[in-house]
Amino acid sequence: MLLCDIGNSFAHFCDGKRVWREEPDSFLEKYLDKKVYFINVNEDFKKSLIKAKNWIDLEKYTDFDTNYKGMGIDRKVLCIAVEDGVAVDAGSAITVDLMEKGVHKGGFIIPGFKRIEESYSLISKRLRFKLDFDIDLNNIPQNTKSAISYGAVKPVVLAIQDFAKNKKIYLTGGDGEKILPFLNNAEYDEKLIFKGMKKIIKEKLC
Amino acid sequence: MLLCDIGNSFAHFCDGKRVWREEPDSFLEKYLDKKVYFINVNEDFKKSLIKAKNWIDLEKYTDFDTNYKGMGIDRKVLCIAVEDGVAVDAGSAITVDLMEKGVHKGGFIIPGFKRIEESYSLISKRLRFKLDFDIDLNNIPQNTKSAISYGAVKPVVLAIQDFAKNKKIYLTGGDGEKILPFLNNAEYDEKLIFKGMKKIIKEKLC
Repeated sequence: MLLCDIGNSFAHFCDGKRVWREEPDSFLEKYLDKKVYFINVNEDFKKSLIKAKNWIDLEKYTDFDTNYKGMGIDRKVLCIAVEDGVAVDAGSAITVDLMEKGVHKGGFIIPGFKRIEESYSLISKRLRFKLDFDIDLNNIPQNTKSAISYGAVKPVVLAIQDFAKNKKIYLTGGDGEKILPFLNNAEYDEKLIFKGMKKIIKEKLC
Repeated sequence: MLLCDIGNSFAHFCDGKRVWREEPDSFLEKYLDKKVYFINVNEDFKKSLIKAKNWIDLEKYTDFDTNYKGMGIDRKVLCIAVEDGVAVDAGSAITVDLMEKGVHKGGFIIPGFKRIEESYSLISKRLRFKLDFDIDLNNIPQNTKSAISYGAVKPVVLAIQDFAKNKKIYLTGGDGEKILPFLNNAEYDEKLIFKGMKKIIKEKLC
Protein backbone atom coordinates (compact mmCIF):
# COMPACT_ATOMS: atom_id res chain seq x y z
CA MET A 1 0.00 0.00 0.00
CA LEU A 2 1.42 3.37 -1.05
CA LEU A 3 0.47 6.47 0.96
CA CYS A 4 1.15 10.04 -0.13
CA ASP A 5 0.90 13.35 1.78
CA ILE A 6 1.11 16.25 -0.70
CA GLY A 7 2.17 19.52 0.91
CA ASN A 8 2.99 22.94 -0.51
CA SER A 9 6.68 22.22 -1.00
CA PHE A 10 7.03 18.43 -1.25
CA ALA A 11 5.13 15.16 -1.38
CA HIS A 12 5.94 12.60 1.29
CA PHE A 13 5.42 8.94 0.53
CA CYS A 14 5.20 5.91 2.79
CA ASP A 15 5.13 2.25 1.74
CA GLY A 16 4.37 1.10 5.28
CA LYS A 17 8.00 0.89 6.29
CA ARG A 18 9.96 3.71 4.74
CA VAL A 19 9.10 7.43 4.40
CA TRP A 20 10.62 9.44 1.54
CA ARG A 21 10.24 12.83 -0.06
CA GLU A 22 9.62 13.62 -3.73
CA GLU A 23 9.79 16.87 -5.68
CA PRO A 24 6.35 18.21 -6.75
CA ASP A 25 7.36 18.35 -10.44
CA SER A 26 8.13 14.67 -10.90
CA PHE A 27 6.36 12.40 -8.42
CA LEU A 28 2.97 12.21 -10.13
CA GLU A 29 4.33 10.76 -13.41
CA LYS A 30 6.54 8.38 -11.46
CA TYR A 31 3.65 6.78 -9.54
CA LEU A 32 0.79 7.50 -11.97
CA ASP A 33 -0.15 3.87 -12.53
CA LYS A 34 0.22 2.79 -8.90
CA LYS A 35 -2.65 2.60 -6.45
CA VAL A 36 -1.94 5.50 -4.11
CA TYR A 37 -3.99 6.75 -1.14
CA PHE A 38 -3.33 10.45 -0.77
CA ILE A 39 -4.19 13.72 0.96
CA ASN A 40 -3.41 17.07 -0.66
CA VAL A 41 -3.26 20.66 0.64
CA ASN A 42 -1.56 22.04 -2.49
CA GLU A 43 -4.21 24.06 -4.38
CA ASP A 44 -2.06 24.34 -7.53
CA PHE A 45 -1.87 20.58 -7.67
CA LYS A 46 -5.55 19.71 -7.57
CA LYS A 47 -6.06 19.79 -11.35
CA SER A 48 -3.07 17.55 -12.08
CA LEU A 49 -4.44 14.89 -9.74
CA ILE A 50 -7.55 14.36 -11.89
CA LYS A 51 -5.55 12.30 -14.40
CA ALA A 52 -4.31 9.97 -11.63
CA LYS A 53 -7.13 7.45 -11.99
CA ASN A 54 -5.71 4.99 -9.46
CA TRP A 55 -5.11 7.63 -6.81
CA ILE A 56 -7.67 7.77 -3.98
CA ASP A 57 -8.29 11.06 -2.19
CA LEU A 58 -8.76 10.24 1.51
CA GLU A 59 -10.26 13.67 2.19
CA LYS A 60 -13.58 12.29 0.88
CA TYR A 61 -13.53 9.55 3.52
CA THR A 62 -12.45 11.69 6.47
CA ASP A 63 -14.97 12.28 9.25
CA PHE A 64 -13.58 14.71 11.76
CA ASP A 65 -15.39 15.88 14.89
CA THR A 66 -14.53 19.54 15.61
CA ASN A 67 -15.99 23.03 16.02
CA TYR A 68 -12.79 24.52 14.59
CA LYS A 69 -13.22 26.41 11.31
CA GLY A 70 -10.57 26.32 8.57
CA MET A 71 -8.52 23.21 9.30
CA GLY A 72 -6.47 21.64 6.51
CA ILE A 73 -6.87 17.94 5.72
CA ASP A 74 -3.27 17.19 6.78
CA ARG A 75 -3.88 18.63 10.24
CA LYS A 76 -7.13 16.65 10.55
CA VAL A 77 -5.48 13.36 9.57
CA LEU A 78 -2.66 13.96 12.06
CA CYS A 79 -5.24 14.45 14.82
CA ILE A 80 -7.05 11.27 13.78
CA ALA A 81 -3.76 9.41 14.34
CA VAL A 82 -3.50 10.81 17.88
CA GLU A 83 -7.08 10.39 19.14
CA ASP A 84 -6.15 11.39 22.71
CA GLY A 85 -3.31 13.82 23.36
CA VAL A 86 -1.64 16.78 21.66
CA ALA A 87 -0.62 16.57 17.99
CA VAL A 88 2.30 18.83 17.03
CA ASP A 89 3.46 19.16 13.43
CA ALA A 90 6.67 21.21 13.41
CA GLY A 91 7.25 22.12 9.78
CA SER A 92 7.00 25.40 7.85
CA ALA A 93 4.35 26.26 10.46
CA ILE A 94 4.02 24.59 13.85
CA THR A 95 0.44 23.39 14.41
CA VAL A 96 -0.59 22.29 17.90
CA ASP A 97 -3.94 20.51 18.39
CA LEU A 98 -5.72 18.96 21.33
CA MET A 99 -7.60 15.69 20.91
CA GLU A 100 -9.84 14.17 23.59
CA LYS A 101 -11.40 10.74 22.97
CA GLY A 102 -11.34 11.26 19.20
CA VAL A 103 -12.83 14.77 19.40
CA HIS A 104 -10.79 17.81 18.33
CA LYS A 105 -10.89 20.54 20.99
CA GLY A 106 -9.05 23.28 19.04
CA GLY A 107 -5.48 24.33 18.48
CA PHE A 108 -3.00 27.03 17.54
CA ILE A 109 -0.34 27.88 14.96
CA ILE A 110 3.20 29.24 15.47
CA PRO A 111 5.58 30.18 12.63
CA GLY A 112 8.06 27.37 11.94
CA PHE A 113 11.66 27.59 13.16
CA LYS A 114 13.13 28.31 9.70
CA ARG A 115 10.78 31.29 9.41
CA ILE A 116 11.64 32.49 12.94
CA GLU A 117 15.37 32.18 12.17
CA GLU A 118 14.84 34.26 9.03
CA SER A 119 12.82 36.86 10.97
CA TYR A 120 15.80 37.66 13.19
CA SER A 121 18.04 38.29 10.19
CA LEU A 122 15.39 40.58 8.66
CA ILE A 123 15.27 42.68 11.84
CA SER A 124 19.03 43.26 11.84
CA LYS A 125 22.08 41.59 10.34
CA ARG A 126 23.50 41.48 13.88
CA LEU A 127 20.73 38.98 14.69
CA ARG A 128 21.63 36.62 11.83
CA PHE A 129 22.44 33.26 13.45
CA LYS A 130 21.61 29.61 12.89
CA LEU A 131 19.34 28.42 15.71
CA ASP A 132 21.12 26.15 18.19
CA PHE A 133 18.86 23.33 19.40
CA ASP A 134 21.58 22.05 21.75
CA ILE A 135 21.02 25.10 23.95
CA ASP A 136 20.28 24.59 27.66
CA LEU A 137 16.97 26.40 28.17
CA ASN A 138 17.53 26.47 31.95
CA ASN A 139 20.46 28.88 31.63
CA ILE A 140 20.03 32.61 31.08
CA PRO A 141 21.67 33.51 27.73
CA GLN A 142 24.94 35.47 27.88
CA ASN A 143 25.45 36.36 24.21
CA THR A 144 23.41 37.20 21.10
CA LYS A 145 23.52 33.73 19.55
CA SER A 146 22.18 32.08 22.73
CA ALA A 147 19.68 34.93 23.24
CA ILE A 148 18.23 34.17 19.81
CA SER A 149 18.17 30.37 20.15
CA TYR A 150 16.55 30.70 23.59
CA GLY A 151 14.12 33.33 22.27
CA ALA A 152 13.12 31.12 19.34
CA VAL A 153 12.84 27.77 21.13
CA LYS A 154 11.75 28.48 24.73
CA PRO A 155 8.49 30.32 23.90
CA VAL A 156 7.41 27.48 21.56
CA VAL A 157 8.28 24.77 24.11
CA LEU A 158 6.48 26.60 26.93
CA ALA A 159 3.37 27.16 24.79
CA ILE A 160 3.16 23.48 23.80
CA GLN A 161 3.77 22.25 27.37
CA ASP A 162 1.26 24.72 28.82
CA PHE A 163 -1.34 23.66 26.24
CA ALA A 164 -0.74 19.92 26.75
CA LYS A 165 -0.82 20.05 30.56
CA ASN A 166 -0.52 16.35 31.49
CA LYS A 167 -1.60 14.96 28.13
CA LYS A 168 0.85 13.08 25.95
CA ILE A 169 2.50 15.10 23.16
CA TYR A 170 2.90 13.49 19.71
CA LEU A 171 5.51 15.30 17.61
CA THR A 172 6.05 15.02 13.88
CA GLY A 173 7.42 17.18 11.02
CA GLY A 174 10.95 18.17 10.08
CA ASP A 175 11.66 20.06 13.32
CA GLY A 176 9.67 17.82 15.67
CA GLU A 177 12.69 15.79 16.70
CA LYS A 178 14.64 18.96 17.52
CA ILE A 179 12.22 20.03 20.27
CA LEU A 180 11.59 16.52 21.64
CA PRO A 181 14.34 16.81 24.33
CA PHE A 182 12.71 19.96 25.76
CA LEU A 183 9.24 18.47 26.29
CA ASN A 184 7.86 16.21 29.01
CA ASN A 185 5.69 13.20 28.15
CA ALA A 186 6.42 13.53 24.43
CA GLU A 187 7.38 11.21 21.58
CA TYR A 188 8.45 11.81 17.99
CA ASP A 189 6.93 9.83 15.12
CA GLU A 190 7.97 10.59 11.55
CA LYS A 191 5.07 8.42 10.29
CA LEU A 192 2.30 9.99 12.40
CA ILE A 193 0.32 11.38 9.45
CA PHE A 194 0.51 8.01 7.66
CA LYS A 195 -0.90 6.31 10.79
CA GLY A 196 -3.91 8.61 10.49
CA MET A 197 -4.26 7.76 6.80
CA LYS A 198 -4.08 4.02 7.52
CA LYS A 199 -6.77 4.40 10.18
CA ILE A 200 -9.12 6.10 7.70
CA ILE A 201 -8.45 3.37 5.09
CA LYS A 202 -9.08 0.63 7.67
CA GLU A 203 -12.35 2.20 8.87
CA LYS A 204 -13.77 3.35 5.52
CA LEU A 205 -12.15 1.44 2.68
CA CYS A 206 -11.47 -2.06 3.90
CA MET B 1 16.90 69.00 28.74
CA LEU B 2 16.42 67.22 25.41
CA LEU B 3 16.96 63.45 25.24
CA CYS B 4 17.20 61.44 22.03
CA ASP B 5 17.19 57.68 21.40
CA ILE B 6 18.27 56.99 17.82
CA GLY B 7 17.14 53.61 16.51
CA ASN B 8 17.36 51.95 13.12
CA SER B 9 14.02 53.29 11.88
CA PHE B 10 13.29 56.42 13.92
CA ALA B 11 14.66 58.79 16.52
CA HIS B 12 12.60 59.21 19.69
CA PHE B 13 12.87 62.46 21.60
CA CYS B 14 11.85 63.37 25.14
CA ASP B 15 11.81 66.85 26.69
CA GLY B 16 11.10 65.46 30.16
CA LYS B 17 7.35 65.46 29.66
CA ARG B 18 6.47 64.49 26.13
CA VAL B 19 7.87 61.71 23.90
CA TRP B 20 7.78 62.13 20.12
CA ARG B 21 9.16 60.42 17.05
CA GLU B 22 11.17 62.02 14.23
CA GLU B 23 12.15 60.73 10.80
CA PRO B 24 15.88 59.90 10.46
CA ASP B 25 16.30 62.21 7.44
CA SER B 26 15.26 65.42 9.12
CA PHE B 27 15.70 65.42 12.90
CA LEU B 28 19.42 66.19 13.05
CA GLU B 29 19.16 69.52 11.16
CA LYS B 30 16.10 70.45 13.20
CA TYR B 31 17.84 70.12 16.58
CA LEU B 32 21.47 70.70 15.47
CA ASP B 33 22.07 73.74 17.69
CA LYS B 34 20.26 72.37 20.73
CA LYS B 35 21.99 70.62 23.60
CA VAL B 36 20.89 67.02 23.18
CA TYR B 37 21.87 63.95 25.22
CA PHE B 38 21.62 60.93 22.97
CA ILE B 39 22.23 57.24 22.45
CA ASN B 40 22.53 55.74 18.96
CA VAL B 41 22.41 52.18 17.57
CA ASN B 42 22.16 53.28 13.94
CA GLU B 43 25.54 52.54 12.33
CA ASP B 44 24.74 54.55 9.18
CA PHE B 45 24.11 57.58 11.33
CA LYS B 46 27.35 57.70 13.28
CA LYS B 47 29.21 59.93 10.79
CA SER B 48 26.41 62.49 10.58
CA LEU B 49 26.47 62.93 14.35
CA ILE B 50 30.04 64.26 14.31
CA LYS B 51 28.82 67.67 13.12
CA ALA B 52 26.36 67.92 16.03
CA LYS B 53 28.77 69.72 18.36
CA ASN B 54 26.22 70.24 21.13
CA TRP B 55 25.07 66.63 21.12
CA ILE B 56 26.44 64.46 23.94
CA ASP B 57 26.79 60.70 23.37
CA LEU B 58 25.78 58.99 26.62
CA GLU B 59 27.39 55.71 25.53
CA LYS B 60 30.72 57.15 26.67
CA TYR B 61 29.35 57.66 30.18
CA THR B 62 27.58 54.31 30.52
CA ASP B 63 28.98 51.80 33.02
CA PHE B 64 27.11 48.53 32.75
CA ASP B 65 27.81 45.46 34.84
CA THR B 66 27.23 42.29 32.79
CA ASN B 67 28.90 39.16 31.45
CA TYR B 68 26.65 39.30 28.36
CA LYS B 69 28.50 39.82 25.06
CA GLY B 70 27.03 41.94 22.27
CA MET B 71 24.45 44.15 23.96
CA GLY B 72 23.37 47.37 22.23
CA ILE B 73 23.54 50.68 24.12
CA ASP B 74 19.73 51.07 24.03
CA ARG B 75 19.25 47.72 25.76
CA LYS B 76 21.86 48.64 28.38
CA VAL B 77 20.26 52.01 29.13
CA LEU B 78 16.84 50.37 29.49
CA CYS B 79 18.29 47.95 32.03
CA ILE B 80 19.90 50.82 33.92
CA ALA B 81 16.42 52.34 34.28
CA VAL B 82 15.07 49.11 35.78
CA GLU B 83 17.88 48.17 38.21
CA ASP B 84 15.85 45.33 39.75
CA GLY B 85 13.33 43.40 37.67
CA VAL B 86 12.79 42.39 34.06
CA ALA B 87 13.15 44.96 31.26
CA VAL B 88 11.10 44.18 28.14
CA ASP B 89 11.38 46.30 25.00
CA ALA B 90 8.68 45.14 22.57
CA GLY B 91 9.59 46.76 19.26
CA SER B 92 10.94 45.39 15.97
CA ALA B 93 12.55 42.76 18.21
CA ILE B 94 11.42 41.91 21.74
CA THR B 95 14.36 42.02 24.16
CA VAL B 96 13.89 40.57 27.65
CA ASP B 97 16.57 41.22 30.30
CA LEU B 98 16.96 40.35 33.96
CA MET B 99 18.42 42.91 36.36
CA GLU B 100 19.31 42.14 39.99
CA LYS B 101 20.53 44.96 42.23
CA GLY B 102 21.90 46.90 39.27
CA VAL B 103 23.67 43.87 37.78
CA HIS B 104 22.58 42.46 34.41
CA LYS B 105 22.08 38.66 34.60
CA GLY B 106 21.43 38.01 30.87
CA GLY B 107 18.47 38.00 28.56
CA PHE B 108 16.90 36.82 25.34
CA ILE B 109 15.47 38.10 22.05
CA ILE B 110 12.21 37.20 20.28
CA PRO B 111 11.15 38.55 16.85
CA GLY B 112 8.74 41.49 17.23
CA PHE B 113 5.00 41.03 16.63
CA LYS B 114 5.01 42.80 13.24
CA ARG B 115 7.66 40.37 12.04
CA ILE B 116 5.75 37.37 13.46
CA GLU B 117 2.55 38.56 11.76
CA GLU B 118 4.45 38.84 8.49
CA SER B 119 5.95 35.36 8.97
CA TYR B 120 2.50 33.75 8.93
CA SER B 121 1.60 35.42 5.64
CA LEU B 122 4.90 34.25 4.12
CA ILE B 123 4.14 30.62 5.08
CA SER B 124 0.73 30.67 3.37
CA LYS B 125 -1.76 33.30 2.24
CA ARG B 126 -4.36 31.37 4.27
CA LEU B 127 -2.41 32.46 7.38
CA ARG B 128 -2.52 36.17 6.51
CA PHE B 129 -4.31 37.88 9.44
CA LYS B 130 -3.82 40.93 11.61
CA LEU B 131 -2.89 39.81 15.13
CA ASP B 132 -5.73 40.27 17.62
CA PHE B 133 -4.45 41.40 21.02
CA ASP B 134 -7.97 41.31 22.48
CA ILE B 135 -7.86 37.51 22.32
CA ASP B 136 -8.58 35.51 25.49
CA LEU B 137 -5.48 33.36 25.93
CA ASN B 138 -7.35 31.04 28.32
CA ASN B 139 -9.61 29.76 25.55
CA ILE B 140 -8.52 27.15 23.01
CA PRO B 141 -8.70 28.74 19.52
CA GLN B 142 -11.54 27.57 17.24
CA ASN B 143 -10.55 29.21 13.94
CA THR B 144 -7.44 30.21 11.98
CA LYS B 145 -7.44 33.87 13.02
CA SER B 146 -7.57 33.01 16.74
CA ALA B 147 -5.08 30.16 16.23
CA ILE B 148 -2.59 32.68 14.85
CA SER B 149 -3.16 35.39 17.45
CA TYR B 150 -2.87 32.81 20.24
CA GLY B 151 0.20 31.26 18.55
CA ALA B 152 1.89 34.66 18.23
CA VAL B 153 1.06 36.10 21.66
CA LYS B 154 0.87 33.19 24.13
CA PRO B 155 4.42 31.85 23.59
CA VAL B 156 5.87 35.35 24.11
CA VAL B 157 3.80 35.98 27.24
CA LEU B 158 4.69 32.58 28.74
CA ALA B 159 8.41 33.07 28.01
CA ILE B 160 8.47 36.51 29.68
CA GLN B 161 6.46 35.32 32.70
CA ASP B 162 8.58 32.18 33.10
CA PHE B 163 11.77 34.26 32.89
CA ALA B 164 10.55 36.91 35.34
CA LYS B 165 9.25 34.45 37.94
CA ASN B 166 8.15 36.78 40.77
CA LYS B 167 10.18 39.79 39.68
CA LYS B 168 8.46 42.93 38.44
CA ILE B 169 8.21 43.30 34.65
CA TYR B 170 8.87 46.72 33.09
CA LEU B 171 7.47 46.98 29.57
CA THR B 172 8.27 49.57 26.94
CA GLY B 173 8.34 49.84 23.12
CA GLY B 174 5.55 50.13 20.57
CA ASP B 175 3.97 46.75 21.41
CA GLY B 176 4.67 46.78 25.15
CA GLU B 177 1.23 48.12 26.04
CA LYS B 178 -0.44 45.40 23.94
CA ILE B 179 0.93 42.54 26.07
CA LEU B 180 0.55 44.34 29.43
CA PRO B 181 -2.92 42.81 30.13
CA PHE B 182 -1.52 39.26 29.76
CA LEU B 183 1.30 39.63 32.31
CA ASN B 184 1.28 39.53 36.11
CA ASN B 185 3.19 42.11 38.15
CA ALA B 186 3.92 44.24 35.09
CA GLU B 187 3.77 47.92 34.18
CA TYR B 188 4.15 49.84 30.92
CA ASP B 189 6.32 52.95 30.69
CA GLU B 190 6.76 54.68 27.35
CA LYS B 191 9.61 56.77 28.86
CA LEU B 192 11.61 53.90 30.37
CA ILE B 193 14.68 54.38 28.18
CA PHE B 194 14.70 58.11 28.94
CA LYS B 195 14.65 57.32 32.67
CA GLY B 196 17.85 55.31 32.12
CA MET B 197 19.40 58.22 30.21
CA LYS B 198 18.47 60.68 32.97
CA LYS B 199 20.02 58.40 35.56
CA ILE B 200 23.32 58.31 33.64
CA ILE B 201 23.28 62.13 33.26
CA LYS B 202 22.58 62.57 36.98
CA GLU B 203 25.36 60.19 38.04
CA LYS B 204 28.03 61.16 35.51
CA LEU B 205 27.33 64.62 34.12
CA CYS B 206 25.79 66.70 36.92
